[in-house]
Amino acid sequence: MHLKPIGIIETPYAEKFGAPRQPGLVEEAIGVIRLEAPWNAEEAVRGLDEFSHIWVIYGFHLTPESSEQLTVRPPRLGGNERVGVFASRSPFRPNRLGLSLVRVLRVEPGLVEVGGVDIVDKSPVYDLKPYLPWVESQPDAKAGFAAEKPDSKLDVAFEVEIDPQLQALVRSTIAHDPRPAYRANEVGEFGMTIAGLNIRWRVDPDTSRAIIFEASLFDTGQERD
Amino acid sequence: MHLKPIGIIETPYAEKFGAPRQPGLVEEAIGVIRLEAPWNAEEAVRGLDEFSHIWVIYGFHLTPESSEQLTVRPPRLGGNERVGVFASRSPFRPNRLGLSLVRVLRVEPGLVEVGGVDIVDKSPVYDLKPYLPWVESQPDAKAGFAAEKPDSKLDVAFEVEIDPQLQALVRSTIAHDPRPAYRANEVGEFGMTIAGLNIRWRVDPDTSRAIIFEASLFDTGQERD
Repeated sequence: MHLKPIGIIETPYAEKFGAPRQPGLVEEAIGVIRLEAPWNAEEAVRGLDEFSHIWVIYGFHLTPESSEQLTVRPPRLGGNERVGVFASRSPFRPNRLGLSLVRVLRVEPGLVEVGGVDIVDKSPVYDLKPYLPWVESQPDAKAGFAAEKPDSKLDVAFEVEIDPQLQALVRSTIAHDPRPAYRANEVGEFGMTIAGLNIRWRVDPDTSRAIIFEASLFDTGQERD
Repeated sequence: MHLKPIGIIETPYAEKFGAPRQPGLVEEAIGVIRLEAPWNAEEAVRGLDEFSHIWVIYGFHLTPESSEQLTVRPPRLGGNERVGVFASRSPFRPNRLGLSLVRVLRVEPGLVEVGGVDIVDKSPVYDLKPYLPWVESQPDAKAGFAAEKPDSKLDVAFEVEIDPQLQALVRSTIAHDPRPAYRANEVGEFGMTIAGLNIRWRVDPDTSRAIIFEASLFDTGQERD
């Protein structure tokens, strides 16, 4: 079957590194879904604002296409133990389809603004569906090795000044410790792009505190007005 | 993007008419997901049995492909009022992707048996993902016109004898009143195929009771052994 995007989603996360590992972990992470014709007509989103949550089905477009690996190593298990790809939410999976539950913030013709995204910027979007709590809320579901919400793991401190709203987003994002599991004890420098800012940080080995020491405008290579 | 099925799902519902309108409404409806190579290896489903619920992403293969309709008429609203396609779970949608939360009953290499399906037999399956309650259980989510679980609407009586297990499945399926909204008050005869049985029923106008008056082996046109 051939899928045609209904639009794209713009998010603060330019790359996989730094994007939250599940939706809802970083409520400050706002995404804007821009629908393309014919789906940008008012009719297509009529009634969507009556729902507090929606599903976004999208493509893991930064993940290599040819993956046929049967197992993955979830960060949860320290990055060493392998589980079947269908027992994980890893982007390294057949058909590279992502599924994220997000909060509806604003609905306009051609535009749906959502909160709590874990999706990489410019991901192609294939469908939006309303969340039905009487079917899809199963609070007692067993979820094996991923049974609990991960704790925030890092204190975050700023050596540089940035806009307070961006600071909240950066703090919440880095608090979830985006370091890959196999580098979790590494005391090095890390860099990522969040909301157009090139963020550089290091982890203090004694305090487990992440210290943001650089936040510069990311050069996209595109002309600016 | 091109999607390649990871397998198909076998369910009791040979056609759209009669298939439950959401998963979990008919717990007796069992589906068998048959994974194809390379996904039928033991590794691909390792750890999946630790989860009580999984997502199935599949294709609405019986729905016409070229649909570009922006609005649909949900049965909830009596079949007259239109809402945007993204505010509904209708199969008449761009990319014809279905998303169903089902209960895990059995996991074997190449096979996942699931309960509470609302999926048509032989639908192509594109992904399985574990359900994460700490993200995906949002009991207080608002769901507009689809806020509540629909009540079972029809009493079901049998004029014919069938196997007790099948009877439970047929009863539960028809109790949800599969009649399209615009025929809901119609006193006619209805037919559907459930688990290989050709079921014929009528609704008694005085009692709103569905009476199953025929249950015959469905002739698939294929040779039998």
